[in-house]
Amino acid sequence: MSGPIERAVVLLSGGVDSTTVLAIAKAEGLECHALSFDYGQRHKKEIESARAVARAFGAREHHVIEIGMEGITGSALLEDSPIEVPKDGLSDGEGIPVTYVPARNTIFLSFALGLAESIKAGHIFIGANVVDYSGYPDCRPEYLESFEQMANLATRVSVEGHHKFRIRAPLLKLTKAEIIKKGLELGVDYSLTWSCYDPTSEGGPCGLCDSCRIRTQGMQEAGLDPQT
Amino acid sequence: MSGPIERAVVLLSGGVDSTTVLAIAKAEGLECHALSFDYGQRHKKEIESARAVARAFGAREHHVIEIGMEGITGSALLEDSPIEVPKDGLSDGEGIPVTYVPARNTIFLSFALGLAESIKAGHIFIGANVVDYSGYPDCRPEYLESFEQMANLATRVSVEGHHKFRIRAPLLKLTKAEIIKKGLELGVDYSLTWSCYDPTSEGGPCGLCDSCRIRTQGMQEAGLDPQT
Repeated sequence: MSGPIERAVVLLSGGVDSTTVLAIAKAEGLECHALSFDYGQRHKKEIESARAVARAFGAREHHVIEIGMEGITGSALLEDSPIEVPKDGLSDGEGIPVTYVPARNTIFLSFALGLAESIKAGHIFIGANVVDYSGYPDCRPEYLESFEQMANLATRVSVEGHHKFRIRAPLLKLTKAEIIKKGLELGVDYSLTWSCYDPTSEGGPCGLCDSCRIRTQGMQEAGLDPQT
Repeated sequence: MSGPIERAVVLLSGGVDSTTVLAIAKAEGLECHALSFDYGQRHKKEIESARAVARAFGAREHHVIEIGMEGITGSALLEDSPIEVPKDGLSDGEGIPVTYVPARNTIFLSFALGLAESIKAGHIFIGANVVDYSGYPDCRPEYLESFEQMANLATRVSVEGHHKFRIRAPLLKLTKAEIIKKGLELGVDYSLTWSCYDPTSEGGPCGLCDSCRIRTQGMQEAGLDPQT
């Protein structure tokens, strides 16, 4: 049985970033336990992609946790939101995008911490990135460091001193093209991943939301077919 | 409309502690938004009590969020757990009780943070206490301080600088009897609250789990009928 040093929980949305993170964790020789959420996001298709990715990249197990978000409002990403996903070009990088979901990464990392403690995993991987979505407060390095400190006070293992939890964000400062190049080196098949925030009624990507635009541009820059 | 200074999210399990905390927040003149969780606990009855308490003490609204805990294991409190709730007398206060749920308070506080950000509440109240359950790592003051620091890096309001979140744990160092006396001064009707970890098949309290024993002892010391 592996110890906490060799086991990881990987937050997996099924997008380009978290899929690359899973490949990086695997390449480090870690036993990977993928974790996804069904939280009322508009784009359910990402959960199917997460399942395909977890299978393809040999996650030891894949948990999909259902969570209600009652009362948590103000994001274009939530399915009942009156706010529409913007499709008029990439934002200027100023301010916080309307796709920000209050405390989402904190909620996701908290479940990851509970799972990590349960299975004795020492690493929690997240695809946080400050280049493409520089406006999300819960992707910033100072936030991630602070979560790590809190995690190491919150749990049984921190009291009993077995090991420490590490929050790992290996993509933090990479561009989308750099992320994709790294994934390609590790054998990632990006056709399995899903990025669109607001799929068409036929279930295809809209091609116009920030997430679609950044994906297409990244694929192009990495030398792949932009439709990948 | 009240501002962040006057609005609070109150984590409400429907037990003695969180009910007293709601009464304290109300007595401060705050507009209280109660938050409970259906997380597969053995003792569903606590959710009914939380509803009754939220109604009785004039919470502005009461959210009950359903969350899966798939993969989070190792606690006697979770309904599918093979670990039984201990009933052979109060533990000696050494070590972490088997009723500890990995990262539970971190998960609950994270949702409370998302709700607080959504409704512009500046206060998050939790009934954490280090006297009766001194073994829970996520009730310790250093943990709560660390969560507060993290919360103030995690969110839109922390970036935009409107206000700071405060994690409030007014019962932290009180005994159960002191908590009950404080609640009685504020008009709390403790017959609405629920403490038992493992109700009988008829739906009554078992009278034997730690939570029942501490409650009975507290009621007695506070001069109430121990069966309250």
